[in-house]
Order: sequence, then structure tokens, then C-alpha cells
Amino acid sequence: MKLDHNWIAGFVQADGTFGLNYTKQPRMKLGYTCQPQFRVTQHERDLIVLKRIIDSMGCGIIVKPSGDRDRYSISVANVSDLVDIVIPFFEKNPLYGAKGKDFSDFAKGVRIIKDKGHLTTEGLNALKDLAYSMNTYRKF
Amino acid sequence: MKLDHNWIAGFVQADGTFGLNYTKQPRMKLGYTCQPQFRVTQHERDLIVLKRIIDSMGCGIIVKPSGDRDRYSISVANVSDLVDIVIPFFEKNPLYGAKGKDFSDFAKGVRIIKDKGHLTTEGLNALKDLAYSMNTYRKF
Repeated sequence: MKLDHNWIAGFVQADGTFGLNYTKQPRMKLGYTCQPQFRVTQHERDLIVLKRIIDSMGCGIIVKPSGDRDRYSISVANVSDLVDIVIPFFEKNPLYGAKGKDFSDFAKGVRIIKDKGHLTTEGLNALKDLAYSMNTYRKF
Repeated sequence: MKLDHNWIAGFVQADGTFGLNYTKQPRMKLGYTCQPQFRVTQHERDLIVLKRIIDSMGCGIIVKPSGDRDRYSISVANVSDLVDIVIPFFEKNPLYGAKGKDFSDFAKGVRIIKDKGHLTTEGLNALKDLAYSMNTYRKF
């Protein structure tokens, strides 16, 4: 049974994370890269809910966060899945407040990466600015 | 703007709690009582989301959990509001997995209390059994 799409948006508002992981990467020409990831984490007793979200959205894999004994996450890190499925999904079924702003910054970042902006100095700087102003860095 | 009811159910699946607080109460004839509470807790940056849920559901107050510096909760502890609003709401817009079972046990408990069962030994025993088999006491 598929989950209602608004139901998924409410669940992700509470337990979802949209991250732009800006990190050193010596193998890249510019020395840095930025990896996007959509993640939803849950206690193992509700693993069934994560599986139903994957089934309803049509993307994502189950991963086990390292060092987290009894929790599992949905992870979507594939840029095509983010651009074609995840971003349109939450543009249609909205998030609110700080989480809505994090999603909006995430979508900007993913689209920069999709257009290969992370291979240019200008694009990398824009990604760095986004990564360091969202989630725990966000001022109210 | 009202929130979609399925959206609220998804949010509550992740961050809501349905509790039956079975406690000693020397002023009660049987020495114990049971107080039900529906609660949804959030970081203060998303206080606006809690207010919109109250507005959309038509019940609940904002409380500040003691010792929790930057978090707020919606609390519904009034039995009439639980029976007339909260329980029908989540019967119509369902929760799943362990949280769905917790809600189902909570609804049973609230209905016992509504019928004054908490003033009888039989009702109190039923409430105690429910309280000690749900939420963190639940076996998978």
C-alpha cells in the first residue's frame, strides 16, 4: 500500500534531513567537492515505514548509520534521483519553517551540482555558502 | 493556512507521543490514577509548525518541557478533546508500525478514562497493563 504524499511530507518535516556535504577532496582539481544527500532516520522498530516511503517515492536505499545500533536511514544521494524525484516531490508536497528553507537551499545546491557547477570555483563557492548557512548553521 | 490532515499524521508519526501516565496519587481512593496526554515536541525554530497544527486540529496548547531550553511541545491532556478530536483525527488519518499500535492502546485507555474506569480497580488494572506495554515498554 502506497503512503499518501502529504503524509510523507509531514514525516520528512519531522525526521528528514537535506544535506550538502562540502568536503576536502584532494583528488578533485579544485581540492573540494560537495555531495548532496536526502536522509530519513528511524528506530528499527519502524523500519517498515522507511520501506514504505521508498516504495511510495520510487527512490532511495536503506542504510545503517555507523555507530547507531538500532536505527536505520533512507538515503538518496544520486543526483538524478534528487533532481527528478525528491526535489519535485517536496515542491509539490511542501515543508514549512526552517526545514522548508533547508530544503529550498538544498534544491539550489543540487541543481548547481547537476549543471556541473561543483567543478568550477564559482559553483563551489556558492555550494560552500549554502552548506554553511543551512541546517545547524541556520540563523532563525 | 490550515495544514493537510495527512501531513499532520506523518509529522505525528515521527515526532508525536501518545502517553498514559499511570502514577501514585494518594488523594485518589484507589491510590493510583492515570492521566493521558498527546504531545508533539519540536525545536523552537519550528514553533510556527506547532501553532499551525493546533490551528488545523482545533485543540492543544503550547507548553515548554521543563529543563528543555530550546524546545516546545503541543499538549492535549483534556479527555474531551482527546475523545472528540485527537482520537477520531488519527483514526481517519492513520499512523503505522509501532506508533500506530501505541496510538491504538492510547485510544483504548482514554476511552476507559472517559467512562470513569480509572475510578474502579478493574479499570485501573487495565490502564496499568496498557501503560506498561506501550511506547518504550513495547516489544516488537
